[in-house]
Amino acid sequence: MTDRPRTGTHVVIVGGGFGGLYAAKALSSAGIPLTVVDRRNFHLFQPLLYQVAVGGLSPGDIASPIRSVLRKHADAHVVQDEVVDLRPGSREVVLRKGGPLVYTELVIATGSQTSYFGHDDWKEKTVGLKSVEEALIIRQRVLGAFERAETELDPERRAALLTFVIIGGGPTGVELAGAIAELARATLNRDFRSFDPARTRVILIEAVDRLLPAFPPELSGPARTALEQLGVEVRLGTRVTGMQSDRITLQPPGSGTETLVAATVLWAAGVTTSSFGERVATVFGAERDRGGRIMVGPDLSIPGHPEVFVIGDLAHSNDERGQPLPGLAPVAMQEGRYVADRIRGRTQGPFRYHNKGQLAVIGRNRAVCDLGRARFTGFFAWLIWVFVHIGYLIEFDNKLLVMVQWGFNYFTRKRGARLITFEPGPDA
Amino acid sequence: MTDRPRTGTHVVIVGGGFGGLYAAKALSSAGIPLTVVDRRNFHLFQPLLYQVAVGGLSPGDIASPIRSVLRKHADAHVVQDEVVDLRPGSREVVLRKGGPLVYTELVIATGSQTSYFGHDDWKEKTVGLKSVEEALIIRQRVLGAFERAETELDPERRAALLTFVIIGGGPTGVELAGAIAELARATLNRDFRSFDPARTRVILIEAVDRLLPAFPPELSGPARTALEQLGVEVRLGTRVTGMQSDRITLQPPGSGTETLVAATVLWAAGVTTSSFGERVATVFGAERDRGGRIMVGPDLSIPGHPEVFVIGDLAHSNDERGQPLPGLAPVAMQEGRYVADRIRGRTQGPFRYHNKGQLAVIGRNRAVCDLGRARFTGFFAWLIWVFVHIGYLIEFDNKLLVMVQWGFNYFTRKRGARLITFEPGPDA
Repeated sequence: MTDRPRTGTHVVIVGGGFGGLYAAKALSSAGIPLTVVDRRNFHLFQPLLYQVAVGGLSPGDIASPIRSVLRKHADAHVVQDEVVDLRPGSREVVLRKGGPLVYTELVIATGSQTSYFGHDDWKEKTVGLKSVEEALIIRQRVLGAFERAETELDPERRAALLTFVIIGGGPTGVELAGAIAELARATLNRDFRSFDPARTRVILIEAVDRLLPAFPPELSGPARTALEQLGVEVRLGTRVTGMQSDRITLQPPGSGTETLVAATVLWAAGVTTSSFGERVATVFGAERDRGGRIMVGPDLSIPGHPEVFVIGDLAHSNDERGQPLPGLAPVAMQEGRYVADRIRGRTQGPFRYHNKGQLAVIGRNRAVCDLGRARFTGFFAWLIWVFVHIGYLIEFDNKLLVMVQWGFNYFTRKRGARLITFEPGPDA
Repeated sequence: MTDRPRTGTHVVIVGGGFGGLYAAKALSSAGIPLTVVDRRNFHLFQPLLYQVAVGGLSPGDIASPIRSVLRKHADAHVVQDEVVDLRPGSREVVLRKGGPLVYTELVIATGSQTSYFGHDDWKEKTVGLKSVEEALIIRQRVLGAFERAETELDPERRAALLTFVIIGGGPTGVELAGAIAELARATLNRDFRSFDPARTRVILIEAVDRLLPAFPPELSGPARTALEQLGVEVRLGTRVTGMQSDRITLQPPGSGTETLVAATVLWAAGVTTSSFGERVATVFGAERDRGGRIMVGPDLSIPGHPEVFVIGDLAHSNDERGQPLPGLAPVAMQEGRYVADRIRGRTQGPFRYHNKGQLAVIGRNRAVCDLGRARFTGFFAWLIWVFVHIGYLIEFDNKLLVMVQWGFNYFTRKRGARLITFEPGPDA
């Protein structure tokens, strides 16, 4: 197989996440001119975002400037701008600030964002974990709740401040619940004078009857046990039906409802695609699934538009058994590489996802690990988690020393980035 | 000299900066009960704030939770709250959120903030460097200007985007100018495709006829030379008379005016005390100097109120020659320790500042250093600067690995934290 050099080829990649950057690296390494457009100037290593939320890492530790990732790729241009429209006729991408970009091939990889499943009023009360800003808001609320508990004299109100509810028992919810329990019991244990942080309640709510529903069932039990050992209360088969000020209403298994009083409610229950995805579907006449993802063909292009590819969380592509692929970083990376091969003419076959496994970390030194044939939990799973994540971070931006520092804090149970910034206040 | 234990002693310290925390550590080590009140939950290591502004460090790298600094001091309480009033009659501090705190001794150390010398309309155009938020706004503007220059087609507009003006030739201005020049020439040099970042103009404006006016005159020339070698244009004896959109008006030496077109204007020309300082003066009948600082006696107390001490940037205290002490971290630290000794009855004499010297860093590996008898510039001065700052950071929060990582980036000319966050935008 050889490259298919074509005069005037110019690939436009929208989105600098895992999918977009893997495509960009593969294409520019092959000398194909391209432009990456992203609203932000940085790539975010989302798998560690929960650590920013609990003050274990700074945003800068898990973010890499997109320019920096592509600086050695002379054929790769980077534009910080927002795509506001698409013109299929003239093959143009319309930007908010700059002039339009003409493409020969278009790769759309704009990812997903927090979704409250139509309960937009819940936004006031809860917050998701998809962006740096959301992570810093969670940090504000979690650390701020402890600060307010220190001066609160009313016992009921203090109990509410020390109750943290996490909605959603997937990897993000499990990681957040474990990290907040660790924060309260191990990091903050000597920081407060008027209450014992170990009395903190961390409650994890999942609508189906087991944790980590996307993992094999035999990992759900051990994950629950590990969380409970950290002091997390796990509530399965439980739906959230309402949220008002510091109360949330639950529908536990069986009949009846229940009310929890909690100052802090975090949302790890769902994502959706951005409004840009809707525009893509309209412009190219593509179909979308219930989650807003765009239905793509076996080659990840939009049916009828072989020059337009959709990858990562925005794409609905199926595996061999016709099951939709999950919204995970490895899927996006492999899709990015595949699309680059396709554009270079190096492959004609359909995209095949090679599932190397999935991981979720629980607290400070445990994880659950599904490597297909091998499935296990505990410290060894955690070690795998550590090496996989360090590997990715080094590949992207050589952040080895960040990881050394973080490992050091991890073992000493310190949190290096426990500052509350941009706090809305009377003098802000 | 022995401690003077008194029943019911309770010191309230307002402000968790260098002054407040040094007083708190010394008092609680001696077993004296105290409460530190701060609006923020963290102590900020201000001498490295300019590195946050240029993306060399994350805010978390130079911030330590006040609780964390005092966690081993069981007699020290920490309250994140805002002091809204003072009641000298009942010796109470009134908080915004919590109940009032009763003090036997009060230490006020609320520091200073950016001042535009009455030109409040300049706030729209320029930004100072006293808080984490200001540092991140500077980072947004500086990195954002390069991003916009990449897609700007109009040469004049692009030149304006690549022109950075820093107003004020004290240590902050010198450090910012050097760091931005280094950023453009060494860090970003391969990141852009449509312009050469080395064409960036960095202009440092100082109203008097030399840089670093608070340093001995023989250091001003070498500082200027070092900055000019980095490509900084130094304009001495020049006043800023106006700022509008992307134009600033200057009054250079001699007659006439001059206009500079620059998208980014940074303010390092002055600070003032907060509005809380005004309230302190009113409540205790204290006098204030032109900069809003409270005139204190030789023991740092407010005349007529021997139980109320003012230290750090908020205090106007004089040295032996009747000269006011500068607003520097070492002054605040020594004042904090002195006040603790005074409250403990270990000293009766007046406060004496022991000037161990002052430092300003220029670019990546030079500094100017005034150790009283010894005055020098260059790499050796920079080494002293590094060790002094690492020493302080380790003393406060054992951030040794942060410094190792930063040192590594420093030598490889990387910037680890070049992300633009909280950017106001159409979708924000």
